[in-house]
Amino acid sequence: MAHFAAATAVRHRDGGPEFDVELDPQWAIGEKLHGGYLLAVLGRAAGAVTPDHPHVTAVSATYVTPPEPGPAVARVEVLRSGKTLTQVRAGLLQEGRSRVEALFTMGRLTDEDPHWTDLPPVKATPEENCFLSPEDPPGAGLRVPLMSVVELRLDPEHLGFALGKPSNRGLLTAWMRLADGSGWDPLSLLVALDALPPVTYDLGIPGWAPTIQLTAYVRRLPAAGPILVSQKAGEVGGDRMDEVCHAWDSKGRLVGQATQYAAVRVPA
Amino acid sequence: MAHFAAATAVRHRDGGPEFDVELDPQWAIGEKLHGGYLLAVLGRAAGAVTPDHPHVTAVSATYVTPPEPGPAVARVEVLRSGKTLTQVRAGLLQEGRSRVEALFTMGRLTDEDPHWTDLPPVKATPEENCFLSPEDPPGAGLRVPLMSVVELRLDPEHLGFALGKPSNRGLLTAWMRLADGSGWDPLSLLVALDALPPVTYDLGIPGWAPTIQLTAYVRRLPAAGPILVSQKAGEVGGDRMDEVCHAWDSKGRLVGQATQYAAVRVPA
Repeated sequence: MAHFAAATAVRHRDGGPEFDVELDPQWAIGEKLHGGYLLAVLGRAAGAVTPDHPHVTAVSATYVTPPEPGPAVARVEVLRSGKTLTQVRAGLLQEGRSRVEALFTMGRLTDEDPHWTDLPPVKATPEENCFLSPEDPPGAGLRVPLMSVVELRLDPEHLGFALGKPSNRGLLTAWMRLADGSGWDPLSLLVALDALPPVTYDLGIPGWAPTIQLTAYVRRLPAAGPILVSQKAGEVGGDRMDEVCHAWDSKGRLVGQATQYAAVRVPA
Repeated sequence: MAHFAAATAVRHRDGGPEFDVELDPQWAIGEKLHGGYLLAVLGRAAGAVTPDHPHVTAVSATYVTPPEPGPAVARVEVLRSGKTLTQVRAGLLQEGRSRVEALFTMGRLTDEDPHWTDLPPVKATPEENCFLSPEDPPGAGLRVPLMSVVELRLDPEHLGFALGKPSNRGLLTAWMRLADGSGWDPLSLLVALDALPPVTYDLGIPGWAPTIQLTAYVRRLPAAGPILVSQKAGEVGGDRMDEVCHAWDSKGRLVGQATQYAAVRVPA
């Protein structure tokens, strides 16, 4: 089940709106299944009913109640199908209750260069000089099984927090590969766009920052090789934070981007 | 109906999940009702069922089929209610068909300063030296009734496109006030976060850029007076674009932010 494709497999129930899925405990932070992984499962189900538009190009999700590892149901409904996109509403259910709700725009991606961009790759330390994030990060206070399936190498430039010297920029960057050796694709990118540690670590704020809502756009098919991912805090206040995330492929092209609205507890 | 409060009024049907609404043709771009206005209507209905969490703090929406001005139904469903937030699914329906689907996180905002921010106001020309955007913008090829209810003053620094000299930065900024004289609030901010002309104008790309998905966060209660709003393109390619938007109140504090995934036709 460590393989991404197996961990996100879906089985259609009699051509109806429901798919049986098996949520894999390895794609988790502590006991909580990873938010990007759950979207990848829903995106796989959405793609199964939109053959003309096989790729997730945009998704917005709200995390209602954390699902447990094990059997669950992905329910998908096509809202509208057009020439270049299909809009899909999806829900992840356990015990008949909605755990994640998501709105997908499915399309067909290519690997073409952009017409115009203002999102060049961030400056980063070469992958071989970055630090592989372990399953038991020192000081995190919880196991991160996700790090056994995603090889995440943190840029030491932003690791001051681990030495008690956060930079106060609210920025983390990392190189990422799938541990199963498969290349990145539009579904696995949804994992990468939410896989960095909380950027609040770089602001000297300990503790997890649970995602409330996440929005991700996939912009093109990634080239082979690792991706570079940066995550940045915007503003922290009122026990809430926004973060933006960008991912570039090995050719330096933007492949995905995300924004999230997260809960954060600022120590008094 | 020019008043924002009247144009977004909702009437609860017998305590069920449905509200009757009347979509006002003044809140429109050409013949199309404005996307932020439609979210404000849905947000008003969501707030009516979440008295402990009266404010929209985050919303993600997908635009399925443009609704027509006139009667419509807002359908809301509480997904989960917690101590600090309530998650709501909402749909705008006409003739029984879904026109807009949205996921709301409702909460309670204050006007407190942030704990930390990396989103200070953009540099802008003083409001009195900016250009009031007319209902019939020269060269736009369509009437913009929205400009009769939102006073939008464009920063001349980013108006080169109107003289045939786009800056190629993909950036527009403006000061905004509601024409009815009311102050900005969390619902009307949803209009402001999608009210600027397409930033593609500043890239020399003509034509409208219809929003496919929009995500907005409201961060605090705005101070009295105008807001400053900036909208920026990220990347344009494959007939799609992402844009980010930020809004600051008259005290220079971030009050709202948004990202959208839009369709764009790049001339060959």
